[in-house]
Amino acid sequence: MSIEVPKGFSLSGVHCRIKSDPQKPDLTLIESEVPAVAVGVYTQNLVCGAPIVWNRRHTPSDRIRTVAINSGVANACTGQRGLEDAQRMAQLASAACRADEDQALVLSTGIIGEFLPMDKIEQGIMAAAVKLGSNEPSLITAARGMMTTDTVPKVAGRKITLSGGDVQITGLAKGAAMMGPNMATMLAVIMTDARLTPDTAQDMLRTATDDSFNCISVEGHTSTSDCALLLANGQSKTGPLAGEDLAAFTEAFTEVCVELARAIPADGEGASHLISIEIDGCADRDAARQIARTVANSVLVKTAVAGADPNWGRIVSAAGYAGVPFDPDRVGLRVNGTLLYEGGTPVEFNAQAVSDSIRDNREVLVQLAFGEGDAAARFWTTDLTAEYVRLNADYHT
Amino acid sequence: MSIEVPKGFSLSGVHCRIKSDPQKPDLTLIESEVPAVAVGVYTQNLVCGAPIVWNRRHTPSDRIRTVAINSGVANACTGQRGLEDAQRMAQLASAACRADEDQALVLSTGIIGEFLPMDKIEQGIMAAAVKLGSNEPSLITAARGMMTTDTVPKVAGRKITLSGGDVQITGLAKGAAMMGPNMATMLAVIMTDARLTPDTAQDMLRTATDDSFNCISVEGHTSTSDCALLLANGQSKTGPLAGEDLAAFTEAFTEVCVELARAIPADGEGASHLISIEIDGCADRDAARQIARTVANSVLVKTAVAGADPNWGRIVSAAGYAGVPFDPDRVGLRVNGTLLYEGGTPVEFNAQAVSDSIRDNREVLVQLAFGEGDAAARFWTTDLTAEYVRLNADYHT
Repeated sequence: MSIEVPKGFSLSGVHCRIKSDPQKPDLTLIESEVPAVAVGVYTQNLVCGAPIVWNRRHTPSDRIRTVAINSGVANACTGQRGLEDAQRMAQLASAACRADEDQALVLSTGIIGEFLPMDKIEQGIMAAAVKLGSNEPSLITAARGMMTTDTVPKVAGRKITLSGGDVQITGLAKGAAMMGPNMATMLAVIMTDARLTPDTAQDMLRTATDDSFNCISVEGHTSTSDCALLLANGQSKTGPLAGEDLAAFTEAFTEVCVELARAIPADGEGASHLISIEIDGCADRDAARQIARTVANSVLVKTAVAGADPNWGRIVSAAGYAGVPFDPDRVGLRVNGTLLYEGGTPVEFNAQAVSDSIRDNREVLVQLAFGEGDAAARFWTTDLTAEYVRLNADYHT
Repeated sequence: MSIEVPKGFSLSGVHCRIKSDPQKPDLTLIESEVPAVAVGVYTQNLVCGAPIVWNRRHTPSDRIRTVAINSGVANACTGQRGLEDAQRMAQLASAACRADEDQALVLSTGIIGEFLPMDKIEQGIMAAAVKLGSNEPSLITAARGMMTTDTVPKVAGRKITLSGGDVQITGLAKGAAMMGPNMATMLAVIMTDARLTPDTAQDMLRTATDDSFNCISVEGHTSTSDCALLLANGQSKTGPLAGEDLAAFTEAFTEVCVELARAIPADGEGASHLISIEIDGCADRDAARQIARTVANSVLVKTAVAGADPNWGRIVSAAGYAGVPFDPDRVGLRVNGTLLYEGGTPVEFNAQAVSDSIRDNREVLVQLAFGEGDAAARFWTTDLTAEYVRLNADYHT
């Protein structure tokens, strides 16, 4: 199934020599032919990159025309000069799209503590502007231009039919196992030709992010530059969304975010498993999410999965220190569908069969059930392999 | 310098066949010839071992006579039968010391989800009772009886001279890199012949624990069975401590706790470095401790140290997501004394020299300074090596 570019958007990716490998695009340009509503959610890290500062200042907006993205250098921890470089990058992108500088957003990912090579950025933006296209190859090349340690470009899309006609939602993302917070940044840009108000768009992005990009972790390290943007340019001519149309759109939008989010740990460098953690039966959603995050970030859970070990003790005790009250005597645990633990005590199970099912599948499903309520949450992470450590220990600043 | 056993205490360690290697003691008995004040601090994990339940119920106390400790089986996640086994172990220990069952505390560390082999425990306690001694070899053997994946026994002691005479503070501890929460338990028992009230002892242990046992982490996993006990039997005949005597005692007691605590990550299995993290200039102590803990638990910081990489970005950005407000433009960072980062921007430094200093030293000092106040904290952790992952992935339940 091919993924379409929403109406009125065009994209491109080019190599402008920030990365050493000429086969790897390192600059991506996205253009909307008309001013688009644009909203963002940004890293909570106090130490944040200059592009985050720029984008925070310029969103929510109803007149964004372009997003320029470079990979290789994050423009983070770069002080006043970094802020000026981010502004200059916005000026270059908006000029290339014949717009004003406050109609451009910018994203940078890569090494932190280094300044953007502005001459390369300038050449790259000009080269990208003449290559803008609206077909799937343009989309893929644009996704590749965002990549750092990612091994595959990450794109996802949904076309849905609303009362006024079809709308398209298409997103691109990057982010892989960290080779340093310098490389770890999660970036996502989701475009739609639906018509959304800034308020609706902001609510939708925040809610979907809580169920997608905020539910993944590779090693629990929040990057200086994490960012998800939503651009809605209204070019589908379906009119403002409301009622069932809005509900259907929200569902599809969230699916796109979840698909992009899952693709990030699934591409974790040095990882051999994607671990899906499903928490159920909690008093509220925050409690469920907190337990899910704690299990996901447990080095012991992650090494157990790498070793194909159905080590229920590591999982149950990680839940126990999540800081969420629950009755330990009402906890149940399944791994790949097999019950390992119930009512506060271990259950007899075929350890070899569960171990085999972990070893033989790229994805592992961990399900923890509590007896506190109806709230649920999902979280995705990677296992932790010796190869991962080698990559991270050998990566040098 | 030899470490003395405080007056009125005797200890022993024996092999009672819980561990398969007959060279390894697996049962430790501690006896006080007179009823001792005993207080504990216990794991915050909701999923906790049966011995924790027993000890919580029987401390603070002013009449504890014995502590029985086994390694190999944790007696955690064992339900009602586990509670009965813990009680039976207390009965056996108190009978061996001619005391009542509520005068005995019990500690178990090892595999979780398995029942204590009560026949072996019984034989072990009887064998240990006849071997009780008050010399350094007895102390070392007792410390060895607590060991799981530890490679060295952990003991520390201080003799101090107070106005009424000398008092001795001697502690033993276990805890190493986790091979599972089953093996990860941190246990410490600190004995003194000083006279303390239960209230004073409890305050002192809690405060010292906050600066020692609560300031170490190997992988941030809180075990089901973590426990520190303080026993004070007053046999030094120095009278109740107050004023300068109490201050001097508290200082020495805290030193013993810090020395034992540091010994745990220093013995981290598969680890090549002990990482000392010093946080300064925070608004309050909780803020400093929270930043220290977040940096200590960062997989990226730990792999960077394993790779001898002075990767300031990983350290500064870990501080940034600790959830503590600070001005990023006033952050300074030193690694092994060399300034790497100041005023929100990286500083020029000799990366090779810093890398060499990490590689050539078993201990690495990370110092983060903030401009928010005067509060400080210290934390100790290990690096994260491929060897560590191999050990943890290959360990099977």
